[in-house]
Amino acid sequence: MADKLVREITSMDEDFTQWYTDVCVKAELIAYSHIKGFMVIKPYGYAIWENIQKELDKRFKKTGVENVSMPLLIPESLLAKEGELVNGFAPEVAWVTAGGQEPLTERLCIRPTSETVFSDFYKDDVHSYRDLPRLYNQWCSVVRWEKETRPFLRSREFLWQEGHTIHATKEEAEDRTQMMLNLYADFLSEDMAIPTIKGQKTEKEKFAGAEATYTIEALMHDGRALQSGTSHFFGQKFAEAYDITFTDKDNKLKYVWQTSWGMTTRLIGAMIMVHGDNEGLVLPPHIAPTQVVVIPIMQKKEGVLEKAREVESTLIDAGFRVKVDDSDKSPGWKFSEAEMRGIPVRVEMGPRDIEAGQAVLVRRDTREKITVAIDNLAEEIKNLLETIQKDMYERAKNHRDTHTFEAHSSEEFSDMIQNKDGFVKAMWCGDRACEDKIKEDFGATSRCIPYEQENLSDVCPICGKPAKHMVIWGKAY
Amino acid sequence: MADKLVREITSMDEDFTQWYTDVCVKAELIAYSHIKGFMVIKPYGYAIWENIQKELDKRFKKTGVENVSMPLLIPESLLAKEGELVNGFAPEVAWVTAGGQEPLTERLCIRPTSETVFSDFYKDDVHSYRDLPRLYNQWCSVVRWEKETRPFLRSREFLWQEGHTIHATKEEAEDRTQMMLNLYADFLSEDMAIPTIKGQKTEKEKFAGAEATYTIEALMHDGRALQSGTSHFFGQKFAEAYDITFTDKDNKLKYVWQTSWGMTTRLIGAMIMVHGDNEGLVLPPHIAPTQVVVIPIMQKKEGVLEKAREVESTLIDAGFRVKVDDSDKSPGWKFSEAEMRGIPVRVEMGPRDIEAGQAVLVRRDTREKITVAIDNLAEEIKNLLETIQKDMYERAKNHRDTHTFEAHSSEEFSDMIQNKDGFVKAMWCGDRACEDKIKEDFGATSRCIPYEQENLSDVCPICGKPAKHMVIWGKAY
Repeated sequence: MADKLVREITSMDEDFTQWYTDVCVKAELIAYSHIKGFMVIKPYGYAIWENIQKELDKRFKKTGVENVSMPLLIPESLLAKEGELVNGFAPEVAWVTAGGQEPLTERLCIRPTSETVFSDFYKDDVHSYRDLPRLYNQWCSVVRWEKETRPFLRSREFLWQEGHTIHATKEEAEDRTQMMLNLYADFLSEDMAIPTIKGQKTEKEKFAGAEATYTIEALMHDGRALQSGTSHFFGQKFAEAYDITFTDKDNKLKYVWQTSWGMTTRLIGAMIMVHGDNEGLVLPPHIAPTQVVVIPIMQKKEGVLEKAREVESTLIDAGFRVKVDDSDKSPGWKFSEAEMRGIPVRVEMGPRDIEAGQAVLVRRDTREKITVAIDNLAEEIKNLLETIQKDMYERAKNHRDTHTFEAHSSEEFSDMIQNKDGFVKAMWCGDRACEDKIKEDFGATSRCIPYEQENLSDVCPICGKPAKHMVIWGKAY
Repeated sequence: MADKLVREITSMDEDFTQWYTDVCVKAELIAYSHIKGFMVIKPYGYAIWENIQKELDKRFKKTGVENVSMPLLIPESLLAKEGELVNGFAPEVAWVTAGGQEPLTERLCIRPTSETVFSDFYKDDVHSYRDLPRLYNQWCSVVRWEKETRPFLRSREFLWQEGHTIHATKEEAEDRTQMMLNLYADFLSEDMAIPTIKGQKTEKEKFAGAEATYTIEALMHDGRALQSGTSHFFGQKFAEAYDITFTDKDNKLKYVWQTSWGMTTRLIGAMIMVHGDNEGLVLPPHIAPTQVVVIPIMQKKEGVLEKAREVESTLIDAGFRVKVDDSDKSPGWKFSEAEMRGIPVRVEMGPRDIEAGQAVLVRRDTREKITVAIDNLAEEIKNLLETIQKDMYERAKNHRDTHTFEAHSSEEFSDMIQNKDGFVKAMWCGDRACEDKIKEDFGATSRCIPYEQENLSDVCPICGKPAKHMVIWGKAY
């Protein structure tokens, strides 16, 4: 009975894809809706998203970013003004063709991203260098008509934030692009306990319409890569297409320099696949909706539930997110549920523990049990949560490092990209043809040209021509 | 120069409608987009919405409400399952007919409201009385293809929260309906300084598909009414249409009892029209994004800007939302801008004030000036903000009370509804025909059957038949 919840999920070693889906459903993060690729995010999943939002939003605002709300719909003619963007997105947008009883005179698409809408707004909003920079962001949902869909990882509707900034100089815009990429990487490592590799996307993989796309790439438990956040430098492309000009200090009319950057509910997918195990979710304490669950043992005995409630309020007062599970389920069942939901610490307290003035703390990540004095609980839990947060990061980093392979030759590259689960570092000549061939032959893509370059060989393992960059390759979600 | 911003807005006495639009634009709350009825909410407007969200969300969560995210799109067949709702909303929804390059096999509408989607979800999510109640809410945007549009008051896309709950018993659902109406009324009076009248909508005015709709009605400065929040009791209508059943304690299969309740960005419109004046916005301190603006006088003089910054950080540490305006504009221009933006308190500090250890506080609502010691600033401002919050409520309540008229006879009703700006209380027989006639003859609608009933006469002023209720009538936005 105690392990029934666990028996309901597929083992990750047996079928990682099925394990992932099972966890999404059994940990009550999502439910499927009547439309393919549109999911219901249930309270537990949404509470995780709210914590992500809160932490990210705080970081954004510290850098001067302001939130706004832009229209959901985009006229076809407006979308079409920047050629590369429309070519990139037109195949996957949803079209509104009627409003009320009337057909529309022009089709409107549901925003797949809002560069066009922000550009159109900035065009009229900005006149002088005094109006710059504009550092706007919005939290909203977007729609992209994907063929293959999976909860959080690839859905037709997803929640995200999209920042769109404009600047007077190229340097400022470039600095903002890097600042946001660094902010994302710091958020992932500090709050989500996920190490990432920072780098630049190749021409092939960059965002439609961008001059340069920067990315943070994370490695999932199964050795697949997940693009976890991107920051784009647009140069003056949109400024020219949408005519966003300003009068500079020298009294000359100039085009603005532009950036955009986004993170999505996909982060929840990353968290599941980096930290999860065969018992279910493992949540980093900074993001967990419930950090501590108190499970009373023999709760009908006098004083047990009272003590559990007392502990709960002490811990809430100390600033933790805490719940007592006083349902009429068995303790074993409650343990199993708390594990499935990835609650970082559970506190077990029975009559004998209470008599001895102690409680048992169980770490979700290692399942280690620690007996502590009830009087020291707040202090012990404070330290334990920070230890768990750090250990989870270290464990993920260790996994990433032991699953990152260096190919020094054509043979090594071919072997590793086919037989190893993880990132493969290799040199590259810079030609799209070699990138295409790797995709075709091995199903792998260039994840990024990492900032931290190494010289593994002088030549490209595919064509043998002189190498220009080291690239991280991988099979991606 | 100092009054230039003010000269740019129309006087409210001259043209209230134009004054409203001018304030929305000049206080930088919104910008118009390329699609009629779809507005850009600019940083200052959105910061107001964020404060509204934060306060409301806290109140919701205290009552056990959990947030979720439901799909943006609704299949036509799903929308059609509850007849009254589809008849009420079908004329004003936006239809998606193509996804990517392919036409869809079934039209999808952009949610105008999500009763259907929640019902469809609850149907599979709930099995036993142990699963009840479900108290879910979502913050999102909805689309209704309105013909006439005005910023915040009536737009084709608007932001809102929609709560949808299901319960095991009728009584519990009825309690929740009233609880949320009371929560809304408390929020408006305590945080937005807006008094409201609580009551029930007539059959004619109730929400499509509801058994009963309850409302809070506010009176704007021009004497027009604004429906400011509604709470609906659905009985088992949706449960039957969508087959939402559960096994009760007695082991019998039963239909759930359902409610929904919502508030929108329209609240921002209410706040503008209840508190604003000819200088612009007047914001209640609890909601104002900036509660205090510090304006240094002769800021180039040594020590002035430093002292202003010192005051700013003292006040921020004391928990207030504060900004120093250190731009190179003139003090008069800064005063005018701070007034347009409705910042509750401005602090003026020049070299002589600083030497004397004092500063001048100016209330936005009354323009009263108070000289205080800089050392006492945090305490003085704390008290002043609470005084302003209370005074704004009292002033709005006084305006509402002096613009509420009681019609004891047919003649009085006809006179008041035509010649008075405000609410008109009158008896009503309960017949739709009289309601229709009042709308047709006078352009007024029943705002609600208030909870606080009075007996103004024994007969309906329209038909002379016996009166059933006292109704509040008004011309509405």
